[in-house]
Amino acid sequence: MKTIVIDIKELVQVEREPVKWVAGKDMGRVERLQDAFLEVEDGRIASFGRMSERPAVEEGTRVVEAKGRLVLPTFCDPHTHLVYAGSREIEYADKIRGLSYEEIARRGGGILSTVERVREATEEELFESAAERAREIAGQGTGAVEIKSGYGLNLETELKMLRVARRLKETSPLTIRTTFLGAHATPPEFKGRRGEYADAVINEMIPVVAAEELADYIDVFCDNGFFTVEETDRLLNAGMKHGLRAKVHANELGRSGGVQVGVKYNALSVDHLERAGQEEIEALLGSETMPTVLPGATLFLDLPRAPARAMIDAGLPVALASDYNPGSAPSGNMRLVMSLGCILYKMLPEEALNAATINAARAMGAEEEVGSIARGKRANFLITKPVPGLEYLPYAFGSDWIERVYIGGERVR
Amino acid sequence: MKTIVIDIKELVQVEREPVKWVAGKDMGRVERLQDAFLEVEDGRIASFGRMSERPAVEEGTRVVEAKGRLVLPTFCDPHTHLVYAGSREIEYADKIRGLSYEEIARRGGGILSTVERVREATEEELFESAAERAREIAGQGTGAVEIKSGYGLNLETELKMLRVARRLKETSPLTIRTTFLGAHATPPEFKGRRGEYADAVINEMIPVVAAEELADYIDVFCDNGFFTVEETDRLLNAGMKHGLRAKVHANELGRSGGVQVGVKYNALSVDHLERAGQEEIEALLGSETMPTVLPGATLFLDLPRAPARAMIDAGLPVALASDYNPGSAPSGNMRLVMSLGCILYKMLPEEALNAATINAARAMGAEEEVGSIARGKRANFLITKPVPGLEYLPYAFGSDWIERVYIGGERVR
Repeated sequence: MKTIVIDIKELVQVEREPVKWVAGKDMGRVERLQDAFLEVEDGRIASFGRMSERPAVEEGTRVVEAKGRLVLPTFCDPHTHLVYAGSREIEYADKIRGLSYEEIARRGGGILSTVERVREATEEELFESAAERAREIAGQGTGAVEIKSGYGLNLETELKMLRVARRLKETSPLTIRTTFLGAHATPPEFKGRRGEYADAVINEMIPVVAAEELADYIDVFCDNGFFTVEETDRLLNAGMKHGLRAKVHANELGRSGGVQVGVKYNALSVDHLERAGQEEIEALLGSETMPTVLPGATLFLDLPRAPARAMIDAGLPVALASDYNPGSAPSGNMRLVMSLGCILYKMLPEEALNAATINAARAMGAEEEVGSIARGKRANFLITKPVPGLEYLPYAFGSDWIERVYIGGERVR
Repeated sequence: MKTIVIDIKELVQVEREPVKWVAGKDMGRVERLQDAFLEVEDGRIASFGRMSERPAVEEGTRVVEAKGRLVLPTFCDPHTHLVYAGSREIEYADKIRGLSYEEIARRGGGILSTVERVREATEEELFESAAERAREIAGQGTGAVEIKSGYGLNLETELKMLRVARRLKETSPLTIRTTFLGAHATPPEFKGRRGEYADAVINEMIPVVAAEELADYIDVFCDNGFFTVEETDRLLNAGMKHGLRAKVHANELGRSGGVQVGVKYNALSVDHLERAGQEEIEALLGSETMPTVLPGATLFLDLPRAPARAMIDAGLPVALASDYNPGSAPSGNMRLVMSLGCILYKMLPEEALNAATINAARAMGAEEEVGSIARGKRANFLITKPVPGLEYLPYAFGSDWIERVYIGGERVR
């Protein structure tokens, strides 16, 4: 089945030669075609160009009219905890009330409350709620998403979460990458014995996760009060030996050294970075590791702002992600994340778009499949409502300017 | 035509005795009914109660099922500049680029660029774009809105804007109040002669606006670099003499004395308040003036945060509004504004809901008509998607949890 989108006001983020990511000044540039067409065949982008050069429309081709509208690649979201059980809005209100961490935990809040609920949930329950979230973010313009485990913290439940993510990969139209985050926190059974838990992750979990081919990557929460640099080093090393490329949660709570150990293992991405500074920027320069910032969590938790602007000015690439999870960022809305990239980090609209598409694709290792309008890539694109231009998209931060979403050439909204 | 909504999981913000507003600790309370019904007749709320007490359903009554869903009054938005021409996203990107105020003005940005475009626009063009915005906010759950003039800054164009707002009042299902904001800025014709422009507003505009009954209220931008307290005093006094109750833009840019002069004239509301402090709180205590905060503008412009928490703790009421306008808050999404009330000001979910409904209704002088689920009020309500409870609504800041919206008993979404 062929589809052709015609009369596009502006086809945005077209890519004639494959790129892995864009960095520094290049982030301020987005290739565009006015008065364009986009041709889709077998779920992939077959061709694109100016309307004056459009191919003849064969019989049976579906024609989609996009007059006055922009066509963009769908967003990629390279950092989520999409598989979970139970929302945590009561804890959120309790935090506003000023309850202490201990009181919140006693009232059933905090990350370990999600661990408890995920352990109790059946695989089917987890799948149903995660599939609902996947449908929601697809409707919000996300075409590719990375999903982490990390609310199991024991072999059985980590595997359960990863099987749910794999089943989503098989059933959802979204392009999905999965990440093993056994080292997300120390489970209650190992209280006060974090090093022993790290050993258990290394010796008992990583080999099984890898053998069952349930994860593409390994991630570690390397931060104050969580895993140390030394533990992270051992964990990433073990992951690497089993073919799991590194990702790191770093610098959310302190200057942990998480970026540096990530770069040492050629991590695909280092994420959060709210407290990163010049040393981290220098560690990243010349590496292949994508700094990934999470403005939804920054806003929701009122965290310091990651130095995304300084990173771009220093010549680095930056990716945006939602961090979708029930505690610190209960939203996977990448349209809003792109706005927040401009509002909180002073990214230009073009920089925010690059950060939410091609760089985000790279941060989840999917840049050959998604993240731009390029021949042969998956036909993941969205059609806006009639809008003045690209700059309008992050500016209209409260408007749902998405009219239609296609993933793999099929309309999902 | 009768409508009955049945099997409501929770009917929120019910009011058995009429209140004008809620203040201080009372803002933390929201009256709710579990397992409820809501009956609508002739566009008004006829009755509500527990399902066990529901009336027999007469033939011809439309039955709406709301199992697992909350029913809330729609939002009221007591501060908008909904009538305008042209968006200002290029200026937004230029600001991120670090362009100076002068450069931005030269490239066609700033408030005076909107004035220019509004002067050039036909009444029909202004009406069409404003009606489109009114439809958008209705779909986002807003049932009542205040609309200001203030992009004309001459008699002809201010009247044109107010006629557009009146036509919206007549044709849109929304409950609308209109405000004359001739003293929004000094027009280019009066450059360097602000006092003379204030005189022109007083002598040439207010009498005509009042005689044509085009405005319910008068508003003045009383702030550093805009109108002085002395000018504001004269303007509000003139408005009062013509039956236009005061509203004031105050403390966005400095400690202007705008709150105090507002209270002196028994203003319906004083709005913005980003730089208000203890003196302003004391001026408001015991008054009938509603402090109204605008977190969308705070976020978008990265302003200091209004002391909404301190105000509530001091016993004051607080209202939330969107400030929808093309420069500082290009969004009228009150669902998001309610979330931002919690995130930026540390309002509790109940406080944010009161601030966006009954207190917001009061801030636009519409508390007898809208703002709660009460017998005889307009049947303006929304039905959520299935959600765990009230706290979930501001928590899920990126989710569109609104399923259906009714205004005057008719479904608009």
